[in-house]
Amino acid sequence: MTRVFNFSAGPAALPEAVLHQAANEMLDWQGSGMSVMEMSHRGKDYLSIHAQAQADLRELLNIPSRYKLLFMQGGAVGQNAIVPMNLLRGRSAADYVNTGEWSKRSIAEARKYGTVNVAASGEALKFAGIPKQAAWQLDPNAAYVHICANETLGGVEYHWTPVTGDVPLVADMSSNILSQPVDVSRYGLIYAGAQKNIGPAGLTIVIVREDLIGHALPVTPSAFDYKELADNDSMLNTPPTYAIYIAGLVFQWLKALGGLPAIEARNRAKAALLYDYLDQTAFYANPVDRADRSLMNVPFRLQSEALNELFLQGAQERHMLQLKGHRSVGGMRASIYNAMPLEGVQALVAYMKEFEARHG
Amino acid sequence: MTRVFNFSAGPAALPEAVLHQAANEMLDWQGSGMSVMEMSHRGKDYLSIHAQAQADLRELLNIPSRYKLLFMQGGAVGQNAIVPMNLLRGRSAADYVNTGEWSKRSIAEARKYGTVNVAASGEALKFAGIPKQAAWQLDPNAAYVHICANETLGGVEYHWTPVTGDVPLVADMSSNILSQPVDVSRYGLIYAGAQKNIGPAGLTIVIVREDLIGHALPVTPSAFDYKELADNDSMLNTPPTYAIYIAGLVFQWLKALGGLPAIEARNRAKAALLYDYLDQTAFYANPVDRADRSLMNVPFRLQSEALNELFLQGAQERHMLQLKGHRSVGGMRASIYNAMPLEGVQALVAYMKEFEARHG
Repeated sequence: MTRVFNFSAGPAALPEAVLHQAANEMLDWQGSGMSVMEMSHRGKDYLSIHAQAQADLRELLNIPSRYKLLFMQGGAVGQNAIVPMNLLRGRSAADYVNTGEWSKRSIAEARKYGTVNVAASGEALKFAGIPKQAAWQLDPNAAYVHICANETLGGVEYHWTPVTGDVPLVADMSSNILSQPVDVSRYGLIYAGAQKNIGPAGLTIVIVREDLIGHALPVTPSAFDYKELADNDSMLNTPPTYAIYIAGLVFQWLKALGGLPAIEARNRAKAALLYDYLDQTAFYANPVDRADRSLMNVPFRLQSEALNELFLQGAQERHMLQLKGHRSVGGMRASIYNAMPLEGVQALVAYMKEFEARHG
Repeated sequence: MTRVFNFSAGPAALPEAVLHQAANEMLDWQGSGMSVMEMSHRGKDYLSIHAQAQADLRELLNIPSRYKLLFMQGGAVGQNAIVPMNLLRGRSAADYVNTGEWSKRSIAEARKYGTVNVAASGEALKFAGIPKQAAWQLDPNAAYVHICANETLGGVEYHWTPVTGDVPLVADMSSNILSQPVDVSRYGLIYAGAQKNIGPAGLTIVIVREDLIGHALPVTPSAFDYKELADNDSMLNTPPTYAIYIAGLVFQWLKALGGLPAIEARNRAKAALLYDYLDQTAFYANPVDRADRSLMNVPFRLQSEALNELFLQGAQERHMLQLKGHRSVGGMRASIYNAMPLEGVQALVAYMKEFEARHG
């Protein structure tokens, strides 16, 4: 067996130790005689897994007690509707900041439920940077302000927290949650699909300040009403139990590493290695403003588009996979989430240098 | 390692061969160097898994080409809202048949979106039988007629298909899908949570006649709009890829066994063994009308409630787990889905006889 370096933007690489444990426990979880997949969600074994995963995630993110932590289904695309359904709270409009593809999808979906004010747009920056807050047109009566904390396609990331006063700040953190410490108390709501830094696709994490829930639109499906989920400890219906189990193993792996300060140091070292090289070569280019570069997703172009296939082929021969950029962007993209070891980025940079030497 | 006989109502036992394969492939799926959990859903490896699972399920259920097969998230509780949101199609009302707890939840949720006509209710039968169709009050202008094909709690199951003329028949088959052949062409829509006969919780199967889609209410979230899912091959957003992979392994296991006619024969033999014993003893009782007894979920009571704990304890010592009845029903419940081998039911009946001999 040869494990590869997997640069997929999501679903993405998981820690090898987590996969080993999952494989070992697949037929018999801790002497229970069954797989976690086979357990009743109401039984004590699964309940202990559920509670431990919640406690560990609360500890990792230092989630204040006035916030509910929900395990949901439907991904960030689901939340694009579920957020306005739950958070408009009788108001007619919400502010959205447009920083790229995922912001645009959130904006389009929210328009089904209320008025969307695009408070700022990165369009003039060609979506290669985050608009400075001084230029945002915030509405003090908005139900909330929505941002995408990290744009997976464009590779731009907020390295600061917007100030929105009494208006709750809502952040899609699908592609950077758990990559570094975050002050949850600055947010009204944080949501994230699991399939980048948490675990398998099909699990969605929602962290919401409890005063914001209980005001869902009447048309909100019960399965997507934050209050119903909170009142039933995310078990209004059968939760995605196996995905929660894997997420729990990832949380334990993170804690053993030293938590979010430790993973942030690793992530900064990985990103610095790649960006430093990109900045000193003319053969490759990353278009993003230095201040707004993502620690997680690094898009780059080769000197010539004609070399793309050759680059990908050589990478594959060296066991580096899923480097092709998103079809809407082109070029390459290296996603270097928590589970990507430094050795993976070292191998990538070494190969990039070798490729440049041959074709530059 | 001792594997148990797991009588859970769901999440439920999976075929041991499936779990073995999943464990073996956890770190390296077929030489790809990665787990299925880590694969981009747009990559050729995952796409082949996705397509094969769809093709195998279509083959097993003999799904006509004019039906769309969707992989969704949110379970049957999600579908309780998603069905009316998508299927009211400009009509104001739908017919629902109430046969127990799951029907009741479907009815309550549907009332958010339109008028619900309860066309028939099993209440007079104490939900121990399915109301005969001759007594149903069907509305010829209803958007659809909704049934729960198998009530997991009450253990009642339709062994016939309602005739609804031009009004589409919608069935929640969460707890009996794939247990026997079904004539899909008699239905407008079939949905099922995966966690009984298909795979891990977090995957929902929807089979819908294509002329019924494309008319969703404007407030329908894109992630739950059948048309959006169908147009994007269930990849509007990241699907629950690992759950689909496990479901695909279950489909292959079923095909290797001989498909649905073969599993039906096994299921009938298992159910007959248990019901025959229940009918010849006064110590245990199953309340359900013989014609409507579920092949999947067999609730039964002991002569005295006071013996329940002792019964469960003895079962556990014999490696038979999750036999406790649902909290709203009490007593015992043996769920004997596809993955429960005949040996499990033989062991259960042997233990029941032994327990009766000692305490009867």
